[in-house]
Amino acid sequence: MKKENFSAPLDLKNVKITDNFWFREMELVRKEVIPYQWDALNDRIPDAAPSYCMHNFRVAGKMMKEKRDSGASYVPPAYSYRGFNAVPPNPREPDDEHFYGFVFQDTDFSKWIEAVAYSLTWHKDEKLMQIADEAIDVVCAAQHDSGYLDTYYIINGMDKAFTELKDHHELYCLGHLVEGAVAYYQATGKDKLLKAACRFADYVDSIFGTQDGKKKGYPGHEIAEMALVRLYEVTGEKKYLDLSRYFILERGKQPYYFDTEEFDFGGVPKQKNNDPNRYVYYQAHKPVYEQDEAVGHAVRAGYLYCGMADVARLTQDEKLYDSCVRLWNSIVKEKLYITGGMGGTKEGEAFSFPYDLPNDEAYSETCAAISLAFFARRMLEIEPKSEYGDVMELALYNTVLAGMALDGKSFFYVNPLSVFPEACHKDQRKWHVKSIRQKWFGCACCPPNIARIVTSIANYAYTQNDNTLFTHLYIGGEIKSVIDKQQVICTLSSDMPWNGNVSMKISCQDDFSYTFAFRIPKWTCKKTIKINIPQGISQKEENGYLYFQGKWKNTDEITLSFEMPVRMVKANDKVREDVNKVAFTRGPVTYCLEQADNGENLHLVYVQQSDLYDKENGGILQDKVKVLEDDTLGHRLNKLVIPGKRQKNADSQQNLYEDFVPQEVCNVDLVFVPYYAWNNRGEGEMDVFVAIK
Amino acid sequence: MKKENFSAPLDLKNVKITDNFWFREMELVRKEVIPYQWDALNDRIPDAAPSYCMHNFRVAGKMMKEKRDSGASYVPPAYSYRGFNAVPPNPREPDDEHFYGFVFQDTDFSKWIEAVAYSLTWHKDEKLMQIADEAIDVVCAAQHDSGYLDTYYIINGMDKAFTELKDHHELYCLGHLVEGAVAYYQATGKDKLLKAACRFADYVDSIFGTQDGKKKGYPGHEIAEMALVRLYEVTGEKKYLDLSRYFILERGKQPYYFDTEEFDFGGVPKQKNNDPNRYVYYQAHKPVYEQDEAVGHAVRAGYLYCGMADVARLTQDEKLYDSCVRLWNSIVKEKLYITGGMGGTKEGEAFSFPYDLPNDEAYSETCAAISLAFFARRMLEIEPKSEYGDVMELALYNTVLAGMALDGKSFFYVNPLSVFPEACHKDQRKWHVKSIRQKWFGCACCPPNIARIVTSIANYAYTQNDNTLFTHLYIGGEIKSVIDKQQVICTLSSDMPWNGNVSMKISCQDDFSYTFAFRIPKWTCKKTIKINIPQGISQKEENGYLYFQGKWKNTDEITLSFEMPVRMVKANDKVREDVNKVAFTRGPVTYCLEQADNGENLHLVYVQQSDLYDKENGGILQDKVKVLEDDTLGHRLNKLVIPGKRQKNADSQQNLYEDFVPQEVCNVDLVFVPYYAWNNRGEGEMDVFVAIK
Repeated sequence: MKKENFSAPLDLKNVKITDNFWFREMELVRKEVIPYQWDALNDRIPDAAPSYCMHNFRVAGKMMKEKRDSGASYVPPAYSYRGFNAVPPNPREPDDEHFYGFVFQDTDFSKWIEAVAYSLTWHKDEKLMQIADEAIDVVCAAQHDSGYLDTYYIINGMDKAFTELKDHHELYCLGHLVEGAVAYYQATGKDKLLKAACRFADYVDSIFGTQDGKKKGYPGHEIAEMALVRLYEVTGEKKYLDLSRYFILERGKQPYYFDTEEFDFGGVPKQKNNDPNRYVYYQAHKPVYEQDEAVGHAVRAGYLYCGMADVARLTQDEKLYDSCVRLWNSIVKEKLYITGGMGGTKEGEAFSFPYDLPNDEAYSETCAAISLAFFARRMLEIEPKSEYGDVMELALYNTVLAGMALDGKSFFYVNPLSVFPEACHKDQRKWHVKSIRQKWFGCACCPPNIARIVTSIANYAYTQNDNTLFTHLYIGGEIKSVIDKQQVICTLSSDMPWNGNVSMKISCQDDFSYTFAFRIPKWTCKKTIKINIPQGISQKEENGYLYFQGKWKNTDEITLSFEMPVRMVKANDKVREDVNKVAFTRGPVTYCLEQADNGENLHLVYVQQSDLYDKENGGILQDKVKVLEDDTLGHRLNKLVIPGKRQKNADSQQNLYEDFVPQEVCNVDLVFVPYYAWNNRGEGEMDVFVAIK
Repeated sequence: MKKENFSAPLDLKNVKITDNFWFREMELVRKEVIPYQWDALNDRIPDAAPSYCMHNFRVAGKMMKEKRDSGASYVPPAYSYRGFNAVPPNPREPDDEHFYGFVFQDTDFSKWIEAVAYSLTWHKDEKLMQIADEAIDVVCAAQHDSGYLDTYYIINGMDKAFTELKDHHELYCLGHLVEGAVAYYQATGKDKLLKAACRFADYVDSIFGTQDGKKKGYPGHEIAEMALVRLYEVTGEKKYLDLSRYFILERGKQPYYFDTEEFDFGGVPKQKNNDPNRYVYYQAHKPVYEQDEAVGHAVRAGYLYCGMADVARLTQDEKLYDSCVRLWNSIVKEKLYITGGMGGTKEGEAFSFPYDLPNDEAYSETCAAISLAFFARRMLEIEPKSEYGDVMELALYNTVLAGMALDGKSFFYVNPLSVFPEACHKDQRKWHVKSIRQKWFGCACCPPNIARIVTSIANYAYTQNDNTLFTHLYIGGEIKSVIDKQQVICTLSSDMPWNGNVSMKISCQDDFSYTFAFRIPKWTCKKTIKINIPQGISQKEENGYLYFQGKWKNTDEITLSFEMPVRMVKANDKVREDVNKVAFTRGPVTYCLEQADNGENLHLVYVQQSDLYDKENGGILQDKVKVLEDDTLGHRLNKLVIPGKRQKNADSQQNLYEDFVPQEVCNVDLVFVPYYAWNNRGEGEMDVFVAIK
């Protein structure tokens, strides 16, 4: 870890995204998701699970205007379960007294305000800002004088506050509140919510720590760690960094803090449990310095690793950074889907054991892929290595975007790599896998998480330090930057992910010395990169980045051309699910077969090695595959057409078992669409991996 | 359904099994399992889950000799769960007052006494009979004057008796008690337990029925239906047949009886539930006349279908028989494993949807295969069609026997077709799949069920009516039979499942006219059967049975020779799990690959179609495969050696995803062992299906 390698994302106000691909997504979020989310927060979506989020804030802040007369005395139906996921008798008629929804329902607001904030950086929307300010007033009204702000305990009784950290998400609520507040302050300069977040953080700081009389607890669901670092970076208050560091380093120490808590999930009195794996789900089974395998709930893990990377960077903690690198490798070498998703099992929405990456029972939560992009960006902030950018790109262009329909109106929580709809409907083992995107979820983590990452995509594309501007993702935009005391505008043009030609134009008054660095994508062939740089600019490659250094003048331009072949990819042989199968990728995009293009019974198609493999040069014969531009899916994208075979369809009169006879096969053109675009034409089968013979 | 086709199993006392293969299994059960079971019933197995069965009977019968002083007042730990699976604080120290174990724990005794009874038919064991008689005394002491006999309610309070039929197994306990009692009476002539069973059945009959004032309930877990038929057949009391018929025909009618019950599983107050699938698990979602898909808990389903077949036969109910045939076809055409197992999903230990037959997550409970053999035998009793015998044979020679180790000392509950031990240990989705047989189970249904079917195997091999003796399974034995008023002894010799040569010798005083019928196994080629019969005997084939009819004299012999080629079998293309794979069988035996013979990473081996497939004649080139006799597994069996390929082993330095390159492969001799014999050499990988290219 070298300090001179450090870099940081740019202020979003100084980056104007113009990218064909991503700006469409950003506008989709701004126009579709953010207004929809606000309706959801206020329980106004007719066919979707109510959030109760703003309701809870109003109850907590004693802002309910009028008391409804429900005509019957009412006992909250799930109070015996401590209100967890309680719903009122009539879901559309929450009363004036009770908390409803999940214990972390407050975060629906926090994630919304964060996306709102980012959207305001490119689209000043006074009306939206007014709605946001009024929402902030409601939220702040709920805050206790102490600074405490979690409506679940404010409504249900403060006696239990901070007694169920393992499962009751109070510190998770703090984390999201901080993230939203920082973003809103940075976008608008308005600090009401930021002050509320600081007061809550201060209160938490007064309760937790290693000092005598303080609780030695830490979050059950991580995020406060990375959020507090942002709070430190925006306020300069070191106590927030210290609190984050405390949470990280205390985690998993023996005796376990969670053992000292009275209740388990759902308010069930805790039973003695000496299972050494009992806190694996929480990444709290051992101190983070000793962790070397990504385990447990995948989103929690990703968020923790982000906080670790942040704290490692800011405190120059090499040992902590080593842990981050080990955990990164555990994900990338053993637990990552080819779609950039992670979390192989629904059991605990968690990482499975190494190389266990089921396709049809995948969990691969959208939020987990988002947390992986968060983690990758933080690793890049420490050390620019192309591997981090490659994985970030893979997650963003595939699983993160697959989480949202192309019209921005429905969402996936789980992102399988193989779907047979009948199984999703009839097989309980696959009930977590939806064969069609949902409008909204009671546990609405994924849609708002997509909203906040898409609207801040510029933070993943570029980072900067005093000497260098790094382009990690080729996302077109205008980057304003003060270099050498003057404003320089760098304009990146790109048509990713459809072709590999990119350019950066410099606009400045005076010449300046500086370095521009560009990631060499893993999906291209290094030897064929075409580089065009102004005379006198030096060029070097390090850790998969191209560095162009020298004196720059106005209208200078760098052009790079990355070949983007169709690739036929196999998984490591240890991935039992994928043996004798291949997947197809091009550029950062992973492709899949859909029933809409290829008919049903996708399991009966395959590709023939002898048709595709280029014996002389390796890779596949590019003239055998067609890359077709297409806009039938409502936006421009590329499809792949690849020659394949199809076994004769199963005959319904066949017996269940018969003597083997060679299959009758026919030649077919297999049509592949980008994975992120699947399931936009109704329900149907889908496969990322296809058999090869 | 034609009455002249009906046949019935023989009295076990009149069949002496001499078969090399099965007599070994029978003796294993007699010498190993039955004594072990008795220790288990009495909680004397050090490392196994206690049964509490005899404890509960003693408590219920107020037979506890002395009250232990546990030193502390004691509240049963799970009484809030109505005692379901309750265990005492110290599992080895049940107190004198409470019920422990599952609600159906009484059946541990009933299944044991049934196996004991059968074993006494070939091995008079006075000591064992004495133990059995004493156990019967304990059981009968628990019976209420009313006839009621279920220790769970006797101990916990009779106020709730018959109020939780859906989940609390009282009528299941009745059913097993009847089965055990009938068997013990038939084997020994002793009627104490039979009388107790009759009294319990009479009491149940007084409670349930369509008449005014009676409960219109039926069992949550079926078995009473088939048991009551046996009680009818042994006592001649038609009321038992009527009660069975009532249970069957009332099942699934609307409004649902189960809706009227107050509690759900575990004593949880019932919530309103209008899910039309809510009783699918119980096969109580619609009347049996309308059922056409095998659904829900597989063992319950199998037992229900047995009862249906029995009642259809005895009441000449064609419509009910049609239901049996439809449900049979549903299993055999869509839901049967190539190992004769059924039940594709652990969720509810149930049938999954058609063609969903996962290998590694299979449930395929041993008891489900046993219930399928029960069902097949009952279908044969109605109509001798070889398909029933084929499936019965498949279940018995494969999954049923796989349930027990070759030494009779450990057992499988779940019978997967593919095992990767690491997954069984680390992947919660596969925790139901054990990678090594267990000593005993808290829910000990499978080991005693194996014991009772193995010890009564003769009942599955042969059935008889006035005109014909049917040989369904080629299990060697001496069958004493009164034909034409004289005793005839038919001696069947066979070396199944290792070769297909069988003979039957007739021993009699006088000539007699009769028909001997033999099943043509599906696994042979009809055209090549060699038949040798005495002169003057006529021969015909019908529904897959060979009928030899005529006048028989002493020393007459029938010899049949069935070719037993190695078969390479593919599943229906609709079975997605098995596409591009084959399995190998020979005779009734399904084979599998084990790590012990073939090394680890079994997913990297495959067979090459061009090496094995006989283009001219179909099937596989028999000279390419070796059938080796082997006794390294502790008993004589055949292994298959088949030429295959193995991909070069995965290199730990490989990336998770890489450009496809053709695999390096080497030739290997793949060694297959019978599936029933797998996992007798320690833990390791196993696969029934292997890839074909």
